[in-house]
Amino acid sequence: MNVTTPVERQIQLAHGGGGQLSADLVRDVILPALGKGQDPECLLDSAVLARPAGRIAFTTDSYVVRPLEFPGGDIGKLAVCGTVNDLAVSGARPVALSMALVIREGFELELLERLLRSAGQTARQCGLEIATGDTKVVDRSACDGLIVNTAGLGYLSPLARLGPKRIAEGDRIILSGPLGEHALAVMAGRSNLSLSVELKSDCAPLWAPCRDLIERLGAGLKFMRDPTRGGLAATLVELARSSRRDLEIDESLIPVNPSALSAAEILGLDLLTIANEGKLIAVVEAGRADEAVRVLRSHDICRQAAVIGTVGLSVEGDAVVEMVTEVGGRRMVQMPYGEELPRIC
Amino acid sequence: MNVTTPVERQIQLAHGGGGQLSADLVRDVILPALGKGQDPECLLDSAVLARPAGRIAFTTDSYVVRPLEFPGGDIGKLAVCGTVNDLAVSGARPVALSMALVIREGFELELLERLLRSAGQTARQCGLEIATGDTKVVDRSACDGLIVNTAGLGYLSPLARLGPKRIAEGDRIILSGPLGEHALAVMAGRSNLSLSVELKSDCAPLWAPCRDLIERLGAGLKFMRDPTRGGLAATLVELARSSRRDLEIDESLIPVNPSALSAAEILGLDLLTIANEGKLIAVVEAGRADEAVRVLRSHDICRQAAVIGTVGLSVEGDAVVEMVTEVGGRRMVQMPYGEELPRIC
Repeated sequence: MNVTTPVERQIQLAHGGGGQLSADLVRDVILPALGKGQDPECLLDSAVLARPAGRIAFTTDSYVVRPLEFPGGDIGKLAVCGTVNDLAVSGARPVALSMALVIREGFELELLERLLRSAGQTARQCGLEIATGDTKVVDRSACDGLIVNTAGLGYLSPLARLGPKRIAEGDRIILSGPLGEHALAVMAGRSNLSLSVELKSDCAPLWAPCRDLIERLGAGLKFMRDPTRGGLAATLVELARSSRRDLEIDESLIPVNPSALSAAEILGLDLLTIANEGKLIAVVEAGRADEAVRVLRSHDICRQAAVIGTVGLSVEGDAVVEMVTEVGGRRMVQMPYGEELPRIC
Repeated sequence: MNVTTPVERQIQLAHGGGGQLSADLVRDVILPALGKGQDPECLLDSAVLARPAGRIAFTTDSYVVRPLEFPGGDIGKLAVCGTVNDLAVSGARPVALSMALVIREGFELELLERLLRSAGQTARQCGLEIATGDTKVVDRSACDGLIVNTAGLGYLSPLARLGPKRIAEGDRIILSGPLGEHALAVMAGRSNLSLSVELKSDCAPLWAPCRDLIERLGAGLKFMRDPTRGGLAATLVELARSSRRDLEIDESLIPVNPSALSAAEILGLDLLTIANEGKLIAVVEAGRADEAVRVLRSHDICRQAAVIGTVGLSVEGDAVVEMVTEVGGRRMVQMPYGEELPRIC
């Protein structure tokens, strides 16, 4: 694709040297695309943030998804949502993001700008700033395009009382919507696959629904997590292990996107083990479950929220996750072993 | 090199899948190598930090240095020092780091462990924790080994009054030691170069000298920066532009490492424009310059600290940096244009 892109619209190795070309790239391309204007303050080594009202949450993720743009999102939007969501499910209001780019020499500036605009828009949509950043350029053999890292800083809500140790027998497990849309949309975006169904990634920031759950349920909200790599299965097995409680979910209660279900069947994938980027698992007191579902459904991205299971007994050895299947059988939900779908996030 | 490494001692694509193998890699390799034991708390999505006493500084950098190990350091040590130093020169005590790894499939576990142990040791040496992390594995065509990102969180010292706007005519420019050791040691570490001189990277954490300068000089300390990519030249030209003041340095006052000087001459490089990873530039009130030099020299890594120049008049147009050469001539110090030495940090 670089054949038709003039060389001045491509990233050069010299853009990474820390000299004038680096400064030009940051000032003329990166900051405007992120929507930050050309404020020289943005060029300082560290961002400075106001004093927080409480404790701080801190998280990071690198994003290596291919293709860089996929139905429903792109690596820029994903890099903001993924880190925002890690903070949100910890009960922290996202306050600032860092964004570090590793760019392959020859990368098209137009594509870079589009991806950064998407990141900037998503950050503004969450009411937060991309506070600090870094840009490295590497040679063509060293990276196959663009790798984005974001780290995120959030202020923990004083109302949030979250943790695997807080869950108890009878608590309800809630899922905010249908599974697998992100992984399947990315797979569909790969040129060597053509799926006959229309699918979009669910990639979305989850702070608004998380905030409302925290504010409305207080201590009635016990645990939140976003089922990304490894899917619902990995998240629930980890929760069972760390809480030492068996969990039971009911297949017939899990919200379904028919397009995702057919795509998964075509590809031989299990919706339970593949990545989501805009879904939330919450564990709440039984008596607050209906209220929690109502709170979630008031958000467009959680319209299909539903109770899908129950927390069971505390156990001495390895706690397990069981699923009652649609035909009434029982199946152990296993931690996926390795990488079913590489470079999905 | 992978021919002799058994496959179970190599990174597999499946290590990046978010399933059991990912969890095993984090628990059995990454956390122990970082010196964090196997505390399951370390596996949570976000680290939680205590409430800070003041404002927060937040920074990030990705590290793509090749080779991964070089005389005087490695990518693990560098990834800690680089981010610690960005905080330190902002006047912030480093408190927590994130560390995100992008690893190529087939990477040797032994090397990964060695690099992470180095990162963990350097962090402990700075009295800070690697609080949160992420691991992605990519296929062999997507990355040529290991890319490390660190983001850092620091608490700003209430005594620090730093910024380019604070510098004034007559202030002294101090450099903490000789230039170019990092870039030249990395070049020497590349197998296709053999330099007859012994050189080690200066890669080191700078918080201790920065803290002492802040505590001893208070408002007499005006500005600090670590001259990494682009070297002393880029840092001073940026300072001249952002402060709108001409700067003058004296070549004969700049501390010299004779090995670095000969290596730079062999390679045709300018010590002023290449990267350092353990050096500090400070601008202080003229009357406090001797004290600042004494404070710096009390630290092993700053034993050759010296006043190298003076802040000049404020100007309307583009402020410049001039160097009085050893033969008494004058030379403009230019912002380096692009990448002289790729993948040096």
